[in-house]
Amino acid sequence: MAERTDAEHNAKMAKIKVARDRIVEGKTQEKGLLIVHTGNGKGKTSAALGMVVRAIGHGMKVGVIQFVKGAWETGEKPVFDRFADLIEFKPMGEGFTWDTQDRARDVAVAREAWDEVKRMIADPSYAMVVADELNIVLRYDYLPLDEVLAVLAAKPADTHVIVTGRNAPQALIDMADLVTEMTLVKHPFREQGVKAQKGIEF
Amino acid sequence: MAERTDAEHNAKMAKIKVARDRIVEGKTQEKGLLIVHTGNGKGKTSAALGMVVRAIGHGMKVGVIQFVKGAWETGEKPVFDRFADLIEFKPMGEGFTWDTQDRARDVAVAREAWDEVKRMIADPSYAMVVADELNIVLRYDYLPLDEVLAVLAAKPADTHVIVTGRNAPQALIDMADLVTEMTLVKHPFREQGVKAQKGIEF
Repeated sequence: MAERTDAEHNAKMAKIKVARDRIVEGKTQEKGLLIVHTGNGKGKTSAALGMVVRAIGHGMKVGVIQFVKGAWETGEKPVFDRFADLIEFKPMGEGFTWDTQDRARDVAVAREAWDEVKRMIADPSYAMVVADELNIVLRYDYLPLDEVLAVLAAKPADTHVIVTGRNAPQALIDMADLVTEMTLVKHPFREQGVKAQKGIEF
Repeated sequence: MAERTDAEHNAKMAKIKVARDRIVEGKTQEKGLLIVHTGNGKGKTSAALGMVVRAIGHGMKVGVIQFVKGAWETGEKPVFDRFADLIEFKPMGEGFTWDTQDRARDVAVAREAWDEVKRMIADPSYAMVVADELNIVLRYDYLPLDEVLAVLAAKPADTHVIVTGRNAPQALIDMADLVTEMTLVKHPFREQGVKAQKGIEF
C-alpha cells in the first residue's frame, strides 16, 4: 500500500473538516430537502429508513408511504409501532396485482397511495415524508409524472421528502436537492448463478 | 414516454417475481452475509441503520460500533435507547484527533473500537454487527487490513456483518457477499458552491 505523507494526510483531514462544517452549517438553515434514492443496488429503502430513524430521534413527525410492498420489508413495522406518536406508516402496495389485464386496479392503488403522500406533504406537521418505491409506479405510468412533480415543487420549505426506487425519472432528479444512486457491485443471490467464476477470480 | 406492450410488462413483472422468490428462498437459508456499503455518496450509514431497524424488528440482537463519530449521526441514539435490550450502540470515534502529530492516539482509538467489533462477532448471540466507517480507518492504516480480513473470514456462519465507509479496500470487496456503492449524483451542499451552473442547466 502506498505511503501517505503527513502533509497529504493533513490536507485530506482539513478537507473533510471543511465539508463537515459546511454540512452542519447548512443544517442550521433547516431547508427541507427533496431526496432521491435510485439505482439498481440495495439500500435505497434501507437508507430512507435510516433517515426516518434519525428524524424520529430528533422528535420530528414522519410519514412513510410504501407504494410497493416487498416481502423483505416487514422488520421495521414493530419498531415503528413503538413510535406511533411520531411515525405514520402506511404500506399501500398490497393491492397491486401487476396484472396488465387489470391495470385500472393498479392505477387506483397507486392513486390511493399518492393521495396519502399529498396529504402528508400538504400538512406542515410532517417534517419528513417518504414515498417508498414511488419511482417504480412512475416508471409504469400509474401516476402522471407532471402531477407528482408539481406537488413536490410546491412542498413546504421545511419538509423533507424522500423518494425511492430504481429508474428515477430524469425530471425528478433535476428537481431534487440530493440524489444518490445505489449501484450493485456484488450480490449474493446473483453470485449463486455464477458460482463457477469464483474459481477464476480468486 | 414510450409505450410498453402488455407482453413486455408481463415479462418484466414475471422477472421481478422470480427475483423476489429467489431472495426469499435465499433468506430461508439464513446465511449470515458480509455486507459492504461504500462509495462517495450519502446513505452508507443510513442504509446500515435501516437494516438495523429491520433486524431489531425481528427480535435479533445487533451491535453497532461507530469508528468515526459524525456530527450528523446523533438522531438514532434516542431510538436505540428504547431498544436497549436488542441494540448495543457504541460511538467509539469521539477520541479521534485526526492529528498526524498524535497518530499513535488515533491508532489506539481505532484498536479499541475494533476490539469491540471482534468481541461482538465472536459472540454468536449477536445476529448483526455494524462496523460503521471501518473503511476510513483501514484507509488510513490505523488497523492492519490482514487482521480485519481474518476476523471477518472467521465470523460465525449466521452472523451478518455490515462494514461502511468510502474507499472500501478491494480485498474486503472481494470477500464480501453483498456490496453496494452509493454514488453521489447530486448534493445540495455541493451545489451551493456552483450556484452559477443553475442558470445554465435549467
